[in-house]
Amino acid sequence: MSDLEHQTTPYLRVDLPTFESNLSKMSRALPGTALRPHVKAFKSTSVAKRLHNAGHVAFCCATVKEIEGMAAAGLGDDLLLANEVLDARRLGAVAETGAKITIAVDSKETIDAAVDGGVNNVLVDVNVGLRRCGCAASDAGSLAKYARSRGLNVRGVMGYEGHLMMATDRKVQAAMVKDSMRILLEAHTDVGGPIVSAGGTGTFDINSWATEIQAGSYLFMDTEYAKLGLPFLECLYVVSKVISVSPDRSWAVVDAGLKALGMDHGNPSVEGGIVGFCSDEHTTLYPLKGQEKVSWKVGDHLFLSPAHVDPTIAKHERMLAFEGNKLIDEWPVDLRGW
Amino acid sequence: MSDLEHQTTPYLRVDLPTFESNLSKMSRALPGTALRPHVKAFKSTSVAKRLHNAGHVAFCCATVKEIEGMAAAGLGDDLLLANEVLDARRLGAVAETGAKITIAVDSKETIDAAVDGGVNNVLVDVNVGLRRCGCAASDAGSLAKYARSRGLNVRGVMGYEGHLMMATDRKVQAAMVKDSMRILLEAHTDVGGPIVSAGGTGTFDINSWATEIQAGSYLFMDTEYAKLGLPFLECLYVVSKVISVSPDRSWAVVDAGLKALGMDHGNPSVEGGIVGFCSDEHTTLYPLKGQEKVSWKVGDHLFLSPAHVDPTIAKHERMLAFEGNKLIDEWPVDLRGW
Repeated sequence: MSDLEHQTTPYLRVDLPTFESNLSKMSRALPGTALRPHVKAFKSTSVAKRLHNAGHVAFCCATVKEIEGMAAAGLGDDLLLANEVLDARRLGAVAETGAKITIAVDSKETIDAAVDGGVNNVLVDVNVGLRRCGCAASDAGSLAKYARSRGLNVRGVMGYEGHLMMATDRKVQAAMVKDSMRILLEAHTDVGGPIVSAGGTGTFDINSWATEIQAGSYLFMDTEYAKLGLPFLECLYVVSKVISVSPDRSWAVVDAGLKALGMDHGNPSVEGGIVGFCSDEHTTLYPLKGQEKVSWKVGDHLFLSPAHVDPTIAKHERMLAFEGNKLIDEWPVDLRGW
Repeated sequence: MSDLEHQTTPYLRVDLPTFESNLSKMSRALPGTALRPHVKAFKSTSVAKRLHNAGHVAFCCATVKEIEGMAAAGLGDDLLLANEVLDARRLGAVAETGAKITIAVDSKETIDAAVDGGVNNVLVDVNVGLRRCGCAASDAGSLAKYARSRGLNVRGVMGYEGHLMMATDRKVQAAMVKDSMRILLEAHTDVGGPIVSAGGTGTFDINSWATEIQAGSYLFMDTEYAKLGLPFLECLYVVSKVISVSPDRSWAVVDAGLKALGMDHGNPSVEGGIVGFCSDEHTTLYPLKGQEKVSWKVGDHLFLSPAHVDPTIAKHERMLAFEGNKLIDEWPVDLRGW
């Protein structure tokens, strides 16, 4: 039995050579602090350490739990919580241990929360078109002024063009990113500070206005991101086992279901078949079009490719890094929860 | 600050009086072992203990991890793994501690796995129309014979009419369940044994052919199940906080996103607004139709109602049980993973 077959299914398999290739492609494109890797994508200090070793010492987080775990793992050189919070006391406690903590603010309430919680550094979060957080560009200057009046160090601006990540026409996308970043740079003029933080995997190579790009999914990719023709390749799979084949062989069932897969972008994919539907702990697979029967047999190991990688990883306790069928490393997903 | 506002958001809130009402309504309808509560719905030994105290001593599990945790918590009177597995050694190890373990089988391979793993009791899993696991009814007798020849105790049959759970016309549903159970009873004639295990929350009151009903979601309900007009009420919410309101008040953003919510049945719902979209750690909320602005303000606590309760719970470490705004109990979700 190979290492691959020896594990309890379902589990997360990372193809290590592809992962390393994705990592170094991005490090060549955006070396050092030109990339602020987004921890939310992988929620693992083991992965973060590999990025740190590659020269990326400043990280981006989406939850307080991620900040706490990164600092505890010795990765607290420069941690940005790229979200607004109203209770920053846990972040202040992390800052007291010596980590450098910066937080996104987009209102007086969130600035007050930073002060009350003991966080000293902020970025003014500006809405650049995504209907989510961020102040109006025209309010950014006065918020920065207010933050400074309250004793905070305003390091610059942040603005996430998340609504443009999945555009498939890259020329159109580039024009839209430019418009979006014009808003951010206008705000930056009023705010000041060295940082203009933006971008993601889908715009890493066309967002030339940001001083740092917040990307994480590029490390693993998924079937959604794979449609964009980026230079990164999919390398994360949910490994499952065929536990049942219907009597007429018109479907097979594997032991990985929607509790092991990020489902917000739809069903996973599988080579050699069509995903019918996912139940809690099962996925039913049909034959490819034009074929009447599945060729899989009970006991076969199948790789499911998730539609969305970030929430898929967040459902697992660990990732297993393989070279072929040989287990090389285990990466705990140690930054889950809130 | 109330107990409700004191917690780190997002978190799972259970309305305890409604939960208890759901629990006792079902216990009256299906007392004792007429109900085999499905642990997959809640993944918590704290919840299971409440069911055990109400007289339900036999449980249904979907993963080996759930079986292990239930037995370790002293709830091993009669544990059914209602799934096929090909490596039953961990289950055999649990059986050796004195728990009674039964496993679903639908092929020679899975019967052999039960024998090899040291599990003594099986149910023959019969396909009753859902395109998932289960043998053909006509094969059930010979599989039972094979299982007995290998020294296993065949306790009966199992057949899940999962494709009929969400039928909204109850008369049509009842007729389809009858057809479905006719298949199972036909198999049962060939298999023998005291158990005919089937059903779920959506068919608990119309499946009169099963000797035991496998239901769990009724304890919490969700927006999908709420459409069916069952006597159980929703009582599980993802509590979130408004962290940002757009300058023109045309949307608000809360700090609970798709990593805190089961997304396979779509977006959650919220009172007083419309859910726009979920990001990893945010949900954007729009005003109700006919209103131009949201009335929420930064800091407000909002309850999101998940579309699908089982995978929502599986994304959290704990549930907090409240009476109104008063925290009464904490239930660890201690049976996650595989």
